[in-house]
Amino acid sequence: MEPRVTDLDVQPPAAAPAPRPVPHTPAARDFADRHIGPRGDETARMLATLGYDSLDALVDAAVPATIRTDRPLDLPPARSEQQVLADLRALAGRNRVMTQMIGQGYYDTVTPPVIRRNVLESPAWYTAYTPYQPEISQGRLEALLNFQTVVSDLTGLDVANASLLDEATAVAEAVALMWRASKASTGTVVLDADLFPQTLAVTRGRAAAVGLPVVVADLTDGLPEVDGPLVGVVVQQVGASGALRDLRPVVAAAKERGALVTVAADLLALTLATTPGELGADVAVGSAQRFGVPLFGGGPHAAFMAVRQGLARTLPGRLVGVSVDADGAPAYRLALQTREQHIRREKATSNICTAQALLAIVASMYAVFHGPDGLRDIARRVHGHAVALAEVLAAAGVAVEHEAFFDTVRLAVPGRAKDVVRAAAARGVNLYAPDADHVQVSCDETTTDHDLLRVALAFAEGGATTLTPDAGGRYSVGFVGARPADLPPHLTRATGYLAHPVFHRYRSETAMLRYLRRLSDKDLALDRTMIPLGSCTMKLNATVEMEPISWPEFASIHPFAPHDQTDGYAALVDELQRWLAEITGYAAVSVQPNAGSQGELAGLLAIHAYHEARRTPGAEHRDICLIPASAHGTNAASAALAGLKVVVVATAEDGEVDLGDLRAKLEQHGPRVAAIMITYPSTHGVYEEHVREVCDLVHAAGGQVYIDGANLNALVGLARPGELGGDVSHLNLHKTFCIPHGGGGPGVGPVAVARHLVPFLPGDPRPGGEGAAAPVAPVSAAPWGSAGILPISWAYVALMGADGLRTATEVAVLAANYVATRLAPHYPVLYTGPNGLVAHECILDLRPITRATGVTAEDVAKRLMDYGFHAPTLSFPVPGTLMVEPTESEDLAELDRFVDAMVAIRAEIDAVEDGRWPLADSPLRQAPHTAAAVTADAWDHAYGRETAAYPVASLRTDKYWVPVRRIDGARGDRNLVCSCPPVEAFADGDLA
Amino acid sequence: MEPRVTDLDVQPPAAAPAPRPVPHTPAARDFADRHIGPRGDETARMLATLGYDSLDALVDAAVPATIRTDRPLDLPPARSEQQVLADLRALAGRNRVMTQMIGQGYYDTVTPPVIRRNVLESPAWYTAYTPYQPEISQGRLEALLNFQTVVSDLTGLDVANASLLDEATAVAEAVALMWRASKASTGTVVLDADLFPQTLAVTRGRAAAVGLPVVVADLTDGLPEVDGPLVGVVVQQVGASGALRDLRPVVAAAKERGALVTVAADLLALTLATTPGELGADVAVGSAQRFGVPLFGGGPHAAFMAVRQGLARTLPGRLVGVSVDADGAPAYRLALQTREQHIRREKATSNICTAQALLAIVASMYAVFHGPDGLRDIARRVHGHAVALAEVLAAAGVAVEHEAFFDTVRLAVPGRAKDVVRAAAARGVNLYAPDADHVQVSCDETTTDHDLLRVALAFAEGGATTLTPDAGGRYSVGFVGARPADLPPHLTRATGYLAHPVFHRYRSETAMLRYLRRLSDKDLALDRTMIPLGSCTMKLNATVEMEPISWPEFASIHPFAPHDQTDGYAALVDELQRWLAEITGYAAVSVQPNAGSQGELAGLLAIHAYHEARRTPGAEHRDICLIPASAHGTNAASAALAGLKVVVVATAEDGEVDLGDLRAKLEQHGPRVAAIMITYPSTHGVYEEHVREVCDLVHAAGGQVYIDGANLNALVGLARPGELGGDVSHLNLHKTFCIPHGGGGPGVGPVAVARHLVPFLPGDPRPGGEGAAAPVAPVSAAPWGSAGILPISWAYVALMGADGLRTATEVAVLAANYVATRLAPHYPVLYTGPNGLVAHECILDLRPITRATGVTAEDVAKRLMDYGFHAPTLSFPVPGTLMVEPTESEDLAELDRFVDAMVAIRAEIDAVEDGRWPLADSPLRQAPHTAAAVTADAWDHAYGRETAAYPVASLRTDKYWVPVRRIDGARGDRNLVCSCPPVEAFADGDLA
Repeated sequence: MEPRVTDLDVQPPAAAPAPRPVPHTPAARDFADRHIGPRGDETARMLATLGYDSLDALVDAAVPATIRTDRPLDLPPARSEQQVLADLRALAGRNRVMTQMIGQGYYDTVTPPVIRRNVLESPAWYTAYTPYQPEISQGRLEALLNFQTVVSDLTGLDVANASLLDEATAVAEAVALMWRASKASTGTVVLDADLFPQTLAVTRGRAAAVGLPVVVADLTDGLPEVDGPLVGVVVQQVGASGALRDLRPVVAAAKERGALVTVAADLLALTLATTPGELGADVAVGSAQRFGVPLFGGGPHAAFMAVRQGLARTLPGRLVGVSVDADGAPAYRLALQTREQHIRREKATSNICTAQALLAIVASMYAVFHGPDGLRDIARRVHGHAVALAEVLAAAGVAVEHEAFFDTVRLAVPGRAKDVVRAAAARGVNLYAPDADHVQVSCDETTTDHDLLRVALAFAEGGATTLTPDAGGRYSVGFVGARPADLPPHLTRATGYLAHPVFHRYRSETAMLRYLRRLSDKDLALDRTMIPLGSCTMKLNATVEMEPISWPEFASIHPFAPHDQTDGYAALVDELQRWLAEITGYAAVSVQPNAGSQGELAGLLAIHAYHEARRTPGAEHRDICLIPASAHGTNAASAALAGLKVVVVATAEDGEVDLGDLRAKLEQHGPRVAAIMITYPSTHGVYEEHVREVCDLVHAAGGQVYIDGANLNALVGLARPGELGGDVSHLNLHKTFCIPHGGGGPGVGPVAVARHLVPFLPGDPRPGGEGAAAPVAPVSAAPWGSAGILPISWAYVALMGADGLRTATEVAVLAANYVATRLAPHYPVLYTGPNGLVAHECILDLRPITRATGVTAEDVAKRLMDYGFHAPTLSFPVPGTLMVEPTESEDLAELDRFVDAMVAIRAEIDAVEDGRWPLADSPLRQAPHTAAAVTADAWDHAYGRETAAYPVASLRTDKYWVPVRRIDGARGDRNLVCSCPPVEAFADGDLA
Repeated sequence: MEPRVTDLDVQPPAAAPAPRPVPHTPAARDFADRHIGPRGDETARMLATLGYDSLDALVDAAVPATIRTDRPLDLPPARSEQQVLADLRALAGRNRVMTQMIGQGYYDTVTPPVIRRNVLESPAWYTAYTPYQPEISQGRLEALLNFQTVVSDLTGLDVANASLLDEATAVAEAVALMWRASKASTGTVVLDADLFPQTLAVTRGRAAAVGLPVVVADLTDGLPEVDGPLVGVVVQQVGASGALRDLRPVVAAAKERGALVTVAADLLALTLATTPGELGADVAVGSAQRFGVPLFGGGPHAAFMAVRQGLARTLPGRLVGVSVDADGAPAYRLALQTREQHIRREKATSNICTAQALLAIVASMYAVFHGPDGLRDIARRVHGHAVALAEVLAAAGVAVEHEAFFDTVRLAVPGRAKDVVRAAAARGVNLYAPDADHVQVSCDETTTDHDLLRVALAFAEGGATTLTPDAGGRYSVGFVGARPADLPPHLTRATGYLAHPVFHRYRSETAMLRYLRRLSDKDLALDRTMIPLGSCTMKLNATVEMEPISWPEFASIHPFAPHDQTDGYAALVDELQRWLAEITGYAAVSVQPNAGSQGELAGLLAIHAYHEARRTPGAEHRDICLIPASAHGTNAASAALAGLKVVVVATAEDGEVDLGDLRAKLEQHGPRVAAIMITYPSTHGVYEEHVREVCDLVHAAGGQVYIDGANLNALVGLARPGELGGDVSHLNLHKTFCIPHGGGGPGVGPVAVARHLVPFLPGDPRPGGEGAAAPVAPVSAAPWGSAGILPISWAYVALMGADGLRTATEVAVLAANYVATRLAPHYPVLYTGPNGLVAHECILDLRPITRATGVTAEDVAKRLMDYGFHAPTLSFPVPGTLMVEPTESEDLAELDRFVDAMVAIRAEIDAVEDGRWPLADSPLRQAPHTAAAVTADAWDHAYGRETAAYPVASLRTDKYWVPVRRIDGARGDRNLVCSCPPVEAFADGDLA
């Protein structure tokens, strides 16, 4: 019986149509059928290869019954793409786009349309992976190097990294860096009371978790008295109050006391203001948001960090450097990369892994497009608007609080702050009231005279001026237009910036467009090939999921806008959190953590706080976190940051947790065991059978179970971490839930917890929120973290529905087993689970081949580039192996293309083994091959040019050419060059 | 004094914010500075090269004072990008997006987001030029061949072209084709009365202009009596009334009378219905709009035409065919291209030049993405909805008019049509009332059960049913959901379609995305290189101009929507028309012509009608159009289509019109002279001095002056055609006004006329409009032609303002003279004007070089591809030459890169001349070189591989590889293959 539709379902005609309606349309085919790669007949052929006659049979064989859920996902029915767009339009319509003058680290900005369309909205950029394989990542590495150059030039410091997650965590990282660099065992860090409230909340929480003493003090008149050693000082310029202070005295005082100094700086102000470098600061951090990145309701934005020479090797996060390739040509790569891939584990002082690459690239391109003159013009215009506003308000009898300011004017309005803010809101402008007696107005790139006029009138209407209205109740503020303005000389920077040609060449839109295209063409992203990266789940980032993030109703919302303006976001976040809780089997989810690492931290902080809350007086602290030897390094680093001590549990032969060792460790540490952190399925790519037993043992010892959600794509719809015994998980929305990797970020890492941990989810970082006083401090600067990209994951779940999500998981398992089975005759598969099957990924063990032939996993990875593929994960979690995760989104043709390439490479290995090619002069060791190398007039290799370039026939119709040959990593680490090299370097073909 | 802003300028706060506000922002730099390539210092260096010290001085020297205007452009001040987006949002907000069920050739459809983002919104596709140079156009040629295959398969006819402008002109073209093919000298064409009203209006107008007798008749019961020979019959299936008729009797009767038969067909219906081919028809035409192309307020959309074998060489428009390259590999090219480039001039029966490439590509990709099964599913769903609606209305007492229908249900509602339409509009649905007693409802891909319910209720609320309301005034229509449905067997097609693998391979979004990327990577467009095409003005298509065309408020408007829903469009069109009139110096402009050729036709029809209206009884008809020998072939073809006879006027040695010959021709034809058609500046690329004299002479003879606006980019802000003596011009918005070329369309060709010709602008084609009864019949199917892309040109003018537009012209002139001057030592410049200067383009004369060395202009054009350039215009207007138009958007670096390439090529020519390389085995004649050719193990050329691939160093960091070598054109014309070749052709490497 089909549903009966009558007029009762139909609303009476509205007076006016809803804004931007989109037809409600059933899809011709389900979206799931577009998301999932293999067609029905392909699935059948893949199953036949494996000897199963249905997906159900395969899944029954691969996934232990003990972990299967018996409760299907309870989610709304799958919706068509048109329906989801319509529903998102409706949600967007519940957010209110205002003129945003709240400031506090978030400023409206103009994303140049050419950058919006050709970076933010271009799959060539947003579907790219982190540039661990530098040869196929030269485009985004150049863009990130530009970013580092911008930060280094503007801060006046020597070395900048390739972005951090947000300004608040960047300050927390700076505090940790100062401790690390000072090598002090005791001491204090002083935090400027004029740091943004959310920065204070996050930093204090992070410091408290690891027991670092911090003091918050007003630095206007110098440093406070501090007992014991002074490790570091963090001062903010421009202050949260808008104050622009002469920082020389406070820096001098800090230096005198042997302390390091961090300046939390405003990047746009730095185009005019004295730089941290000029001040003698050691570290600068801040946000690059206002360089063309939309407000996004709080994120994602790129934060930055720069340090003086000598501190480079203490920098957290990623760092792009310059090295040379096998032909001596300059080439970019991640420098000091090993720090990240093999993070310092329990000795870590940072667990940063993901960066904000896509947003850093947008910000860098904003600087490239405007150049130093353009940026200075913008800053002078912003400052001029602030000056004009201060003048007009002062003339109207309002007291301007600070003598010097850049963009933010703080005004004393005794008892009238709420009235002024309300009057401004009625005129479409959001202002900021830090208390009942003050209002702050932050100007930005988009500010117009008309905006200032509205603000001035709002002050009058709010009763904060000496003006009187005319008979009609209207005020005249006599405002004359603003002019660009300079800062006072003693606060003005003396040094130039952005002299490199890259900041001068691309000023016309045509030139900019071509630069963006040229860079992206150098790279391999999902729009050209599968990216079979184990544990990274490089699946389709569907256009319909991506489109809404550019809509102004999502993109132009300030994270601290009043609740009545963000109802759409609130509803979307609430629904997404509930869906994720249903999928994971937990009681609640917080989307606040803006990277997986932050999700881990939030989860462990919850566990820690839970134990502390229950601890009876005098009882031991539960401060030990058990971590299996096979775990991702980030796990241990997160535990350390949560104040836990790491104890390693052995891994058994088959890759599972060694239950004997676990029992022994629980025995040994019993009452101190806070938690175990496991990944399920583990990074070995199999469904371990004993996970429930592991959980039970830890629970019996009074510990909590953290299940890392990195491999959730193997579970959705089949099992729930919360049902396996997990108390906490974090999810990677940029893996399982379709947020694109963006060439190395943004990531989103929501934390999911069982009912007893719900009170310990991260607190609200907003000004006036609970801040560090919450049971658990916030872990990100914005309440919903990277709110602006949450519509992507919301759309994915809405589009797929319960059945689609489960089928996706099943096809992901099918694809991994298909690849493993077809490759097994050529490359041994290291671990298998029940019935000889793998989960959603497989590890190919190159070590026997390396022993026999000398050909390494790296050789295979680089040779795959000649075949047009991004390499699988190299030497993780097991050195000398390749880990392959095809995901559900690759169709059979692409899977076969990959298998064919790997089989052809195996034949090349055989040729080395047979002695037909010497290893050193084989296409494997010489890989990858550039077009220049293969077309050189001289060719004296043991193998032919066609073998180098076209080892399989399909390449003749679709060939990707790497822009550089194999890059010398060690050299780059020895000689750190982390900003744009002079052009001559390229002309000479060598950086020596 | 800066403007004083007070509260009087500020609106009181609104109750609710306007939808989708965008901050009002002054640009950091003017948009003009982004649009124009050279920076200030570059301009100075370019001027220095030419020996001028200011732009003004150069322009004074280049542009004759006699043509300069003394009245600056009166346009609104330049606006920032943000302001223009805000203003366009406001205009968009004045259009009303409804559920569009009007039909009549325009149906709502779902553009798959992956296609929207990666074709319609991708500069790699939309900035491409027409594929005259096939080696750098293989991607879009493949896409267009897919389109031809879709059309050929669905119509069941043998050969399809690569698109026409709209369905109405396609029918007019079919009528002309039937006359051409029949070789009849007298006779009649019968037009089905069930053709769309706009089709009838356009076709009757076109037939009347050339004196072809047509009869409109109801073909339901067979052919009407016709005196004399019956040349052809045009029948529409699905009829405008929605009727799906068995066409066999009427086709048989036509064949019996020796007539040709054209079927105007619905492409989606053809997935189910008997095909024109099965019926024995000779020609099929129609619109591909509903294959994923937005309604766009009327256009642009791709129309199609297919013919049976034997008529291929009579097809108008462009035709993609398959040939082979120099290595024998299959390669695509425009077949029979010479027909277009050297159009039949005065013997023409079509003046079609532009196609609708971008939209044809979207439609083809829609078919690729859905495949035959998906298309059939959509059609069955559409039909099922129509059936369900007919059933529910019949049950409610409404008479359904036709026994068989596809998507459109015609209902008898005596006297109630207006009421029903009004009730539906109140429920957000647009219906169509052909008269007071009938309403038609057209279902489409987006139709839902909910839509049908709203329609059914509207019939009840309009008093057209036998239903009675309940106490609350509400109706229950008892509607049960629709199911997919098949057509009656006798109307169902018997043949399959889209069996080619391309329609089966790309069903997942991932696969589709990669296919689109792969194709676009084969091509060179403006996003990678300048395209220095003479007379084609390949300037920047700025993102900010492009973004609004995707907004639903512009994209989802039906061209026949009521006026109260299209206020935004009306305002935009009105303003754009006024701005264009101001720029050209005419009294009025009509944007209706959707290509330059249609603009020409409209202009000549206006002249013709003007003369006829003034003709005294017994006086001779003014029916002669004077056209200089150097004119574009389209001019003569348009004259022929306007019923004028072409008389050629000689060109003098210096490229100007031969005034002596002009006087002689005026003498000879005096009272019969209707007009002269000239281009200013002429295609010779110089500002001729005697244009006013030419105009005066023609006016003195009673003729009108038509000034072709193809080269308007040399005039904007400096001179106005209307002030030079022109009575009519057409403009090419896709040249001067930034609408992208789209790989071969859409174009937009507004017609501009002096005051006395205003009454003779094209009529309104809408149903119920004046149609063919207008003083001049409409030339396009939709009232505003390609309304959906007019925001592009509107934005351009708004962004540039008067000063920006004039500066753009001046810089275009500077750039052309810079290139000419730098190249003059190497290549003679054929024509120069005052002071040895050219206008906005220059012709390089290769003929002396060819005579001396054998190296041809084509060799240079192909060799430029190896240097990463699109070739200049080849052999037009002078055989053996290259015409270069750099435009204002190229910066000095790009201009120099081009000059350097040309100079390097000249050195290669020298090497041939010196005998260092034999011509046949020189890199010039062997060009272009594929990567496969240059990396082949065997290499036995006279020159080296590096010379072939990297003749200049800059290519090493940015190399475009052509996908095929030089293509054998003649072979492709001899062996016409115009649909997708079998895959084996590619495997074998040869199509022989």
